[in-house]
Amino acid sequence: MRIRLDIAYEGTEFSGWADQPGRRTVAGVIAAALAQVCSLAEPPRLVVAGRTDAGVHATGQVAHVDLEPATDPEQLRRRLAGVLPADVAVSGVTVVGDDFDARFSALARHYRYLVTDGSPDPLTRRTVLAWPRPLDATAMHGAAQSLVGDHDFAAYCKRREGASTRRRLLRLDVTRDGSLVTIAATGAAFCHNQVRSMVGALLAVGDGRRPPQWPAAVLAAGVRDSAVTVAPAHGLTLVAVDY
Amino acid sequence: MRIRLDIAYEGTEFSGWADQPGRRTVAGVIAAALAQVCSLAEPPRLVVAGRTDAGVHATGQVAHVDLEPATDPEQLRRRLAGVLPADVAVSGVTVVGDDFDARFSALARHYRYLVTDGSPDPLTRRTVLAWPRPLDATAMHGAAQSLVGDHDFAAYCKRREGASTRRRLLRLDVTRDGSLVTIAATGAAFCHNQVRSMVGALLAVGDGRRPPQWPAAVLAAGVRDSAVTVAPAHGLTLVAVDY
Repeated sequence: MRIRLDIAYEGTEFSGWADQPGRRTVAGVIAAALAQVCSLAEPPRLVVAGRTDAGVHATGQVAHVDLEPATDPEQLRRRLAGVLPADVAVSGVTVVGDDFDARFSALARHYRYLVTDGSPDPLTRRTVLAWPRPLDATAMHGAAQSLVGDHDFAAYCKRREGASTRRRLLRLDVTRDGSLVTIAATGAAFCHNQVRSMVGALLAVGDGRRPPQWPAAVLAAGVRDSAVTVAPAHGLTLVAVDY
Repeated sequence: MRIRLDIAYEGTEFSGWADQPGRRTVAGVIAAALAQVCSLAEPPRLVVAGRTDAGVHATGQVAHVDLEPATDPEQLRRRLAGVLPADVAVSGVTVVGDDFDARFSALARHYRYLVTDGSPDPLTRRTVLAWPRPLDATAMHGAAQSLVGDHDFAAYCKRREGASTRRRLLRLDVTRDGSLVTIAATGAAFCHNQVRSMVGALLAVGDGRRPPQWPAAVLAAGVRDSAVTVAPAHGLTLVAVDY
């Protein structure tokens, strides 16, 4: 029986989503919880929509898992809630067809990056990047529009041998609410480090170190530019996946 | 020279505001930081608007301190930012007259209590109470109105020998936004445990354990009722002080 899991976590204390021997990962913690409540001999394999890096959060992560024997989904949800630690929650457990694949059926991923150029706020410090200089959100938004579309994002991707870096970026909006600047990125898919690298480039525009044309020039150059910094993980949250 | 400090903190790792020997308190951490950056022989005494309990947060706490010799406030703010830990921030440093008293000049204190009856959210778990049963926010708001006004809040106060428990409650509003229920309390002043005790009574109304008339009946009885639970500290935040 194939089960869809809707998952939220605070990434602070996790070494990312993906299993790594000896590390505390979100996949590892959830698989161990499933093995415990379903009395499985070994942790089941989870397939996920977005393999988030260490420190990245999620409010709308989606994974699937195949479980035998059949389980009542609501009972499974309650049992998982009883054993999962406070920094990860499975908010939804749904029986889906065998044709549902959390990774390959996903049509779009929605990420949100939060940054404040106001006084650092102790209450949001784990999810909002504190930026020490004023940001021009309007300039950032303008620069972002040149990245939207179907492009080779090699300049914004951590290279993997042989993997394509062509991606479709559907939306990259920068908005301000008081001192909080939100960068909302929606794409069919993202390559590794892409969102945080784009944010890094936009921050350079926002605080005036680079002109608004720069992120597009970097994109066109097609190679990683050492001036593009990867923004810190803790500002990034996977908020939703569309199917 | 009298200085006003505008302060924010996450209460999770603090044993409350007030100095206690051997405990990590907000006042202790800030006084030690002031002593360090101002090269004082001993930590200065802080006078505060709201002596928050262990685990309670603040976004708009206000304190005053007398410092000699005179200090440039903006430089003091930056130096404090350099030495304070991540869970406390001094967002404002202002020179005020000697007639300003953070405690006695305060006209009103604004507190906010957050509770969710939805799926527990790992990203907000330190500031939002997760309630396991559905809450009727409309019934809670109705019940809350009977507490507004000038009353003897003995039934909602942790008793202190000889101290008056008469207080003026200016506003107690319960609103819902999705699964998030906000209880906003404004008063000229509050006695110890008052906000969390009122929230405890409203939660009993919200989940149907008590009728909407119950909080008013408890108030009228004038003695602590063991059925009124003190809501957990982590849902409470001091958001602003009026002068």
